[in-house]
Amino acid sequence: MGPHPAVAAIRLAVRRVLHDILTETERAELDPPTATGGAPAAAGAPPLVLVACSGGADSMALASALAFEAPKLSVRAGAVTVDHGLQEGSALRAAEVVARLGAMRLDPVESVAVTVGAETPVAHSAAHGGGGVRRTGGGPEAAARDARYAALDAVADRHRAAAVLLGHTRDDQAETVLLGLARGSGTRSLSGMAAVSGATGRYRRPFLQLDRQTARKACLVQSIPVWDDPHNTDPAYTRSRLRHEGLPALEKALGKGVVEALARTAQLSRDDADALDTWAAGAETTVRDEAGLLECAKLYALPPAVRRRVLRRAAIAAGAPAGSLFARHIEEVDRLITGWRGQGAINLPGRVEARRQGGRLVIRQG
Amino acid sequence: MGPHPAVAAIRLAVRRVLHDILTETERAELDPPTATGGAPAAAGAPPLVLVACSGGADSMALASALAFEAPKLSVRAGAVTVDHGLQEGSALRAAEVVARLGAMRLDPVESVAVTVGAETPVAHSAAHGGGGVRRTGGGPEAAARDARYAALDAVADRHRAAAVLLGHTRDDQAETVLLGLARGSGTRSLSGMAAVSGATGRYRRPFLQLDRQTARKACLVQSIPVWDDPHNTDPAYTRSRLRHEGLPALEKALGKGVVEALARTAQLSRDDADALDTWAAGAETTVRDEAGLLECAKLYALPPAVRRRVLRRAAIAAGAPAGSLFARHIEEVDRLITGWRGQGAINLPGRVEARRQGGRLVIRQG
Repeated sequence: MGPHPAVAAIRLAVRRVLHDILTETERAELDPPTATGGAPAAAGAPPLVLVACSGGADSMALASALAFEAPKLSVRAGAVTVDHGLQEGSALRAAEVVARLGAMRLDPVESVAVTVGAETPVAHSAAHGGGGVRRTGGGPEAAARDARYAALDAVADRHRAAAVLLGHTRDDQAETVLLGLARGSGTRSLSGMAAVSGATGRYRRPFLQLDRQTARKACLVQSIPVWDDPHNTDPAYTRSRLRHEGLPALEKALGKGVVEALARTAQLSRDDADALDTWAAGAETTVRDEAGLLECAKLYALPPAVRRRVLRRAAIAAGAPAGSLFARHIEEVDRLITGWRGQGAINLPGRVEARRQGGRLVIRQG
Repeated sequence: MGPHPAVAAIRLAVRRVLHDILTETERAELDPPTATGGAPAAAGAPPLVLVACSGGADSMALASALAFEAPKLSVRAGAVTVDHGLQEGSALRAAEVVARLGAMRLDPVESVAVTVGAETPVAHSAAHGGGGVRRTGGGPEAAARDARYAALDAVADRHRAAAVLLGHTRDDQAETVLLGLARGSGTRSLSGMAAVSGATGRYRRPFLQLDRQTARKACLVQSIPVWDDPHNTDPAYTRSRLRHEGLPALEKALGKGVVEALARTAQLSRDDADALDTWAAGAETTVRDEAGLLECAKLYALPPAVRRRVLRRAAIAAGAPAGSLFARHIEEVDRLITGWRGQGAINLPGRVEARRQGGRLVIRQG
């Protein structure tokens, strides 16, 4: 008798990702990268794959599947749990998660404490400092996320891990798409989380096509104790309200396939956004004059979707922080091209200004 | 003292659209179209703009604004109300709406009865037959819509109207985006309703940026009686469930700006989809060999978003009905290119099949 269908499903998802990682690791060994960081350990040594584990059902299911599949493919499997220190007793819980992961014969297993300040998320692992913390703004949830990834990066670097697996499910993906929809900033913001992400492609999400219920079931039938993060049901958090009220109401109105449709939307939107970014990158080189200035007439001739992306690229290149540059900013700059009536300079975030001057669009930091 | 802000807002929205129509009508007179249909009346005669009016708040507000603005621009203003005959007493109500529109000094005002069968929506106006009914499938709501547009087309043709105004608001747009999201078929399905639509650009939606509350308020302060369609609150209808349960729950979870964000998503998605369609149309000509067959190697080299659109175009050109061709069909055909392992022919709607043969993709009707 084979494993329970839920267990078979989580293992298959992990096996597929491990195969991808192995293929890419072999390729990298034949053609070693010049940069350090995501590089594999010395050629010949079995690669290490880490799982990022909160102790919740999704990541515990992922850890169990990794522990089962890795040895069959001669992959070493380890785990990291991040203690955000935001809740009473979080250190104790982290120790408990470490013990459970150790019992699955994952090795190494590490607990990393991070401090999330309102202003400066800092990762400090016991062995090494954090570093490379991305500041994106966006409140406590974003700060916690940034600190978490900085901590995971530090651990992965130290162990020269080939990859870090994340337990995000199709349900998380659907929620992410709705959060992006609420920003109303277009196709890229609807593209959710990528199956492979991070600067070096280090992060993998094997469960992105799998529903949360399957992960939970897999823990249940394997008698794996899971921890339910009270944040996940706290209506103070947008994602929690979405999960427990928004999405169920949407399913009631639109029918059962909503989560699947949202996840499919993410994939299609990601591909569309990638294609349009490629187009814009190519178009940008064709709309500049010999002095490197953007020619308004040539910009005007581009499709609006491409023109807006070219303008966005130019604003970021001039120093505007991507995270603070909204659709409405770009629309205003666009009107210098499509609705020119002698308007003055447009102020953009990061002290960048855009003005039209003699048929050219000048975007520069003040 | 000027008009109430709500009344000022609806009038401004209509005035802008009338200006657009006049500009285009003048241009058309200088360069007369060869096709009949959307063509304006004899040169020099004041153009006629019709409003499609259900008697509900949105379209009654629209009718009142048209009646006010049209004379100032020497535009003739008329109205049409469509009686779907789906409800008890609908003929009586239609007569009442006609009387109210006449009282606004709109002229001509017509009532058109349509019969919506489960299988064959047919428009029959008193004076002229319907014709040109688009069969799209999609249940009773889609059938009613198709019959309604056929009837409006017939009336507009008969009166040689320059345009037909529709009362869809930003709230309707938000609902349409969510309905598209539930289909999970990508950027085009998220693009909602266009401000200008129809084969000849005949239909205009002046209120697409205006909220429903403003239209309702404008009726109230002008003492215009409105009719509340019981369908709009009947939970048997998907749109009604969305309006009264889905969207409010989403707003509660995500905050008040959701409707606006959805409307902005529609515009951005429309532009993105247009740009990608343009790219795909161009790419299609470059991936065919001398015999006109699609070359798999060249298709493989395209960005996925463009390749899938090229495949979709090819399937439709081969006879697959656009409305029955879903993302999953195209994904399966795409795997003949990206995941080739000798699989057989893929069956598509409309007895079209796609097969890979000697490095070529052959899509043809069986």
